[in-house]
Amino acid sequence: MQNQSLPSHPIGVFDSGVGGLTVVRALMDRLPFENIIYFGDTARVPYGVKSVDTIAHFTQEIAQFLQNQQVKMLIIACNTMAAVAADLVRDSANVPVLDVIEAGAKNAVDVSWTGGIGVIGTPATINSNAYARAIHQLNPGYRVYSQACPLFVPLVEEGWLDHPVTKLTAQEYLKPVFVEKIDTLVLGCTHYPLIKPLLLDVVGGRMKLVDSALSIADQAADLLQSSGMANPSHQAPDYRFYVTDVPVKFQSIGERFLGRSLNKIERVNL
Amino acid sequence: MQNQSLPSHPIGVFDSGVGGLTVVRALMDRLPFENIIYFGDTARVPYGVKSVDTIAHFTQEIAQFLQNQQVKMLIIACNTMAAVAADLVRDSANVPVLDVIEAGAKNAVDVSWTGGIGVIGTPATINSNAYARAIHQLNPGYRVYSQACPLFVPLVEEGWLDHPVTKLTAQEYLKPVFVEKIDTLVLGCTHYPLIKPLLLDVVGGRMKLVDSALSIADQAADLLQSSGMANPSHQAPDYRFYVTDVPVKFQSIGERFLGRSLNKIERVNL
Repeated sequence: MQNQSLPSHPIGVFDSGVGGLTVVRALMDRLPFENIIYFGDTARVPYGVKSVDTIAHFTQEIAQFLQNQQVKMLIIACNTMAAVAADLVRDSANVPVLDVIEAGAKNAVDVSWTGGIGVIGTPATINSNAYARAIHQLNPGYRVYSQACPLFVPLVEEGWLDHPVTKLTAQEYLKPVFVEKIDTLVLGCTHYPLIKPLLLDVVGGRMKLVDSALSIADQAADLLQSSGMANPSHQAPDYRFYVTDVPVKFQSIGERFLGRSLNKIERVNL
Repeated sequence: MQNQSLPSHPIGVFDSGVGGLTVVRALMDRLPFENIIYFGDTARVPYGVKSVDTIAHFTQEIAQFLQNQQVKMLIIACNTMAAVAADLVRDSANVPVLDVIEAGAKNAVDVSWTGGIGVIGTPATINSNAYARAIHQLNPGYRVYSQACPLFVPLVEEGWLDHPVTKLTAQEYLKPVFVEKIDTLVLGCTHYPLIKPLLLDVVGGRMKLVDSALSIADQAADLLQSSGMANPSHQAPDYRFYVTDVPVKFQSIGERFLGRSLNKIERVNL
C-alpha cells in the first residue's frame, strides 16, 4: 500500500494498558504541536502472561486500527509487544515504526562509556531478553545485566511513587545491579518513569538512567524532522485516547501517568 | 439432572489462577483421604479486571468442566468468581457448592464478639462489597470495614512472605483498620494465608484473623460428614491439577501455595 501520510496526520502510540501514556507525555513535551492518538488495550491487559502468537495477533490488530485512523507514524510503547512483534509490525506497516526497546537500547549504547549496561523491567520483558539482543546488535562487545522488578508496576499503580515501601523495594532489586560493573541503567518499562526521582535517589552517582519514554520522543522528533513530516501547524494539537475497556481507575491512574487531565477517552472494540 | 455422586468421587476446587491452592492445602490437611481435582484458569487470569458477564461465563464453563469429571462437591476458591457468580453456579449445579466468601463470612460472624469485622482483599473483591453483603445477611447489625490491599498479591507472588517490605506494606494498609472498632479480620483473598504469620505479627493482640481457606475446609468436612459423602477409603488420595496455560513460574509458585510438591499438572482448553 502506498504511504499517503501528511505532516498534519497524528502520531499513533499504543500499549497493552495505561503505561504507554508516559510515552505520550514525553511526546507532548518534546513535540508540542503534533496530534496524537493513543490506543490502550485495557480489556486484554496484561500481555506479559499471554502466548507469543496471541501477543503478535493483538499487536497487529492494534497497528491496523491506528493505520485506519491515518497515523503518520506508529510507536510501540509496550515492551512486551515490542519484544514479540515489532518486526511483524514493521514488515506490514506503511508508515515508520518506532518501538521502546530499540529506542532505549540505542540511547543506552550512546550513553554508556564503559560498555556495561543494566536493564530493569517486568519479568516478561526481562525473560524475553529483547533489550540484551537490541544492545548486542548495536555493539556485540557490550555487557548487559538484566534484573526483573515485578513489584514496581503494582507499586506505581498503587500511587506509592515516593513511599518508603517503594524505596526499600528499589534498594532490594538494585542490590545485585550495584555489584556489576554498570554505568547505565535502562528503565525498561513504561511504568518506571513515574518513580524516576526515587530511582535516581537510590542509584545516586553510581550510574546514569535511560528513560525509554524520553529516548523514543527524541527519536520521533529526529525522524519527523529529517523526513519533513513534522506538523507545520502551531495550533493546539488534538489528542485522542482509545481503550478497549474503561477500568474503574483508568482516569485517575491515566492522569498520573500523563501528568495532565485526560479527556476524549473512547471505548472501542477491535 | 440427578445427582449420581459417590463418596469416592473427588472434590472439585477452582480458581482463576494459583491462589486457590491454599484452599486445596487446607482441604488436604483437614480431609486427608479425599480425592481432589483443582482447576486454575491460568490463561485468563486475572479475573478481577473483567466484566461481570465474562466472569459469570468463565465460571460456569469451569463448574461444568469439573462436573463432567464427576466431582461430588464444588468449591469456588476465587473471591472474584464467588462474588459475581456463586448463585449462578448453585442454581445450575447438581452437587453442593461452597464458596470462600460465604465460608469466610460465616466464620467471621461466629468468631466476632463485638460485631465489628474487618475484611481485607483485592480491589475487585472489596469493590464488589460481597463480604459485607454476606456478613449482613447473617447478622444485619454487624459493622463491616473493608480495606483493599492491592500490593499483597504481587508481594506473595514475589515470594516476599517474611520481608521488611511486606511488613511495612501491611502496617500501611492496616493503619485505618486499627482505628475502627474491629475484633475480627477476614483474609478475603486466597493469597493471604501465605503471609498469615506476618499479618499476625503486625496485628498483634488487636484482633483475630479468619482464614477463608481454613473456614471452607471446615465447612466441607462438616457437609461431607452430615451428608454421608465422606470418602470411606483410607488409601492415599488422588490429586489432579488442571490449568488452561502453564506459566513459567506456575510450578514454583504453586508449590509455595500448596506447601508440597505439585505433580499431575495437565493443561486443558475449555
